[in-house]
Amino acid sequence: MTRNIERMRTRLQSLGLALRPHVKTCKNIDIARQLTAGQPGGVTVSTLAEADYFFENGITDILYAVGIAPGKLAAVADRMARGMALRIILDHPQTATAVARAAREFDTRFRVLVEIDADGERAGLRADAPELIEIASILDAAGCHVDGVMVHAGGSYHCPDADSMQQMAETERASAVAAAERLRQAGHAAPVVSVGSTPTATFARDLTGATEVRAGVHVFQDLVQAGLGVCEIDDIAISVLTEVIGHRSEDGRLLVDAGWMALSRDRGTADQPIDQGYGLICSEDGEALDDIIVTGTNQEHGIVGRRDGSPLNLDTFPVGTRLRVLPNHACATAGQHDGYWIVGSPDQARRWLPRCRGW
Amino acid sequence: MTRNIERMRTRLQSLGLALRPHVKTCKNIDIARQLTAGQPGGVTVSTLAEADYFFENGITDILYAVGIAPGKLAAVADRMARGMALRIILDHPQTATAVARAAREFDTRFRVLVEIDADGERAGLRADAPELIEIASILDAAGCHVDGVMVHAGGSYHCPDADSMQQMAETERASAVAAAERLRQAGHAAPVVSVGSTPTATFARDLTGATEVRAGVHVFQDLVQAGLGVCEIDDIAISVLTEVIGHRSEDGRLLVDAGWMALSRDRGTADQPIDQGYGLICSEDGEALDDIIVTGTNQEHGIVGRRDGSPLNLDTFPVGTRLRVLPNHACATAGQHDGYWIVGSPDQARRWLPRCRGW
Repeated sequence: MTRNIERMRTRLQSLGLALRPHVKTCKNIDIARQLTAGQPGGVTVSTLAEADYFFENGITDILYAVGIAPGKLAAVADRMARGMALRIILDHPQTATAVARAAREFDTRFRVLVEIDADGERAGLRADAPELIEIASILDAAGCHVDGVMVHAGGSYHCPDADSMQQMAETERASAVAAAERLRQAGHAAPVVSVGSTPTATFARDLTGATEVRAGVHVFQDLVQAGLGVCEIDDIAISVLTEVIGHRSEDGRLLVDAGWMALSRDRGTADQPIDQGYGLICSEDGEALDDIIVTGTNQEHGIVGRRDGSPLNLDTFPVGTRLRVLPNHACATAGQHDGYWIVGSPDQARRWLPRCRGW
Repeated sequence: MTRNIERMRTRLQSLGLALRPHVKTCKNIDIARQLTAGQPGGVTVSTLAEADYFFENGITDILYAVGIAPGKLAAVADRMARGMALRIILDHPQTATAVARAAREFDTRFRVLVEIDADGERAGLRADAPELIEIASILDAAGCHVDGVMVHAGGSYHCPDADSMQQMAETERASAVAAAERLRQAGHAAPVVSVGSTPTATFARDLTGATEVRAGVHVFQDLVQAGLGVCEIDDIAISVLTEVIGHRSEDGRLLVDAGWMALSRDRGTADQPIDQGYGLICSEDGEALDDIIVTGTNQEHGIVGRRDGSPLNLDTFPVGTRLRVLPNHACATAGQHDGYWIVGSPDQARRWLPRCRGW
């Protein structure tokens, strides 16, 4: 984990950019402190529960990077009144109108980034959309801060190679910068140009005009990132410890006591060249057993077999053998647990790091 | 929920059988009390954390229905010493040997059901397997109780119609009864013949020889059960409340603030005749909007559209509209939350029921 954090820090330093880590992956303050060391100190969150948890632990500069729901504006105003420097995002004039109404109702000058779309994957306005200026005007008239733009190119998760990943990073950057320029030409300060995802942050060659990069899953990495070429299998810093509870002699598979409750149902590698099932099996000390994966899950059962379906030699995995499972998607698997046991560093053995959860 | 519980109770009464509800679905004591009302009072759990939670809340008769991991036997012995009538299951002579060793080490007479396989889906010995008697002898020699057999026909989840479901219920029953008979002929008491799943419990015509039925998801029902014909959509008693946070005008879809963290990644209807995506959309007051589903998810984003891909009329879903999502799999979706808000009954409005979690 420390190596992953260092690598991203070095990378962004070479691009001259600050990291605003997305702490939805780790949801833990000790790890967030390691991520923000030597950085401006702000973080990105995906829920107000995360915002509260990190604020209680001393982080004040928080970007809530999911389009704000009007029903949450009272909660946002409350947190700002208590000193949280909380920024929200939105991409629709209806939301801007709701924010303007709430600004008057709660006497709050909300701090807003307009979400920009680079790839049609999820949310955001295209950089040339007329609504961009309409939204900024609505917010400005209500005394809110139009602080700039935010973009997330989720399309980076479908890029087959480094070239297309670099191109996606450039599309992400160019969209955000163009949108910010339009806001500035319309008289808004728009100091913030927030870009990123772990894949684009890893592959970007130039991020001129951006002011901060968001990345989060790089802290642990996972099989999806390895499949994208963002990391190696050996960089994956999170696993689920499990134990063999039975043998399926009819098809040469093992039963283990980690099912989808422990691993999550994420099948993020299903569409990648190497399908890792519900996770790749390692020995207890963390050595990957290459083609042995979790082929199926129930709530508390996992079925483990070879990727090609050929039978395992069950004698080498007696009942009681402990194994580790590397996850497809670190955010999803970590989300199934209340915290982390630190292993691999003698002085930190069995140290427990809790996670926040909920909304 | 109350109607679902009543219906299963009436059904099992007509078959002359007791329910040992599987409380891995609800993980809440108030709901478990409603499930066990008028029953012998025992429950089925999927983790030791559940066993602890229900024991602390007054339930002592607990079946831990996942093949026991040898590494958990010290914890099982500890709980038995504290008065929990905890039964474990296993299906391998290696596990029986580990249990026998632990019985001597912890001076504990473990209470064991041998897991029987009816359909090759997951775990268990075939009813005629020689290991059945071998296991019972190992346990008996260590002073453990060979309390009988347990079977779960997960294959019921692939039955296309009521006839095949009835046949699966009969296969499940016959396998368990045959295995119990073999144990009795070998001199073991084997009083318990535990069968079931919600589908087989719903469709079984005769359960002669079984002594208890396990079912759990019937408490909430879900889209998978509706797809199997186990319930109607209107029987589904659990939903995730969400809010529209944006519009995708390019493809006529909505963005909502419920992603896979709130809904789970379960895609249990993907292989059913009606694919419900990540969940079926209802109005805030619970009326299903038929062909409108969650077509995609990220961690805290859901994308909502028509099942056939045709565009929604976005004007009818302004930003801020509240919707409900019915889950594919109640166990998985409930597992993403810390508890339940009770709605629909005026005197119980906003009552919060917590869930236990972890292992």
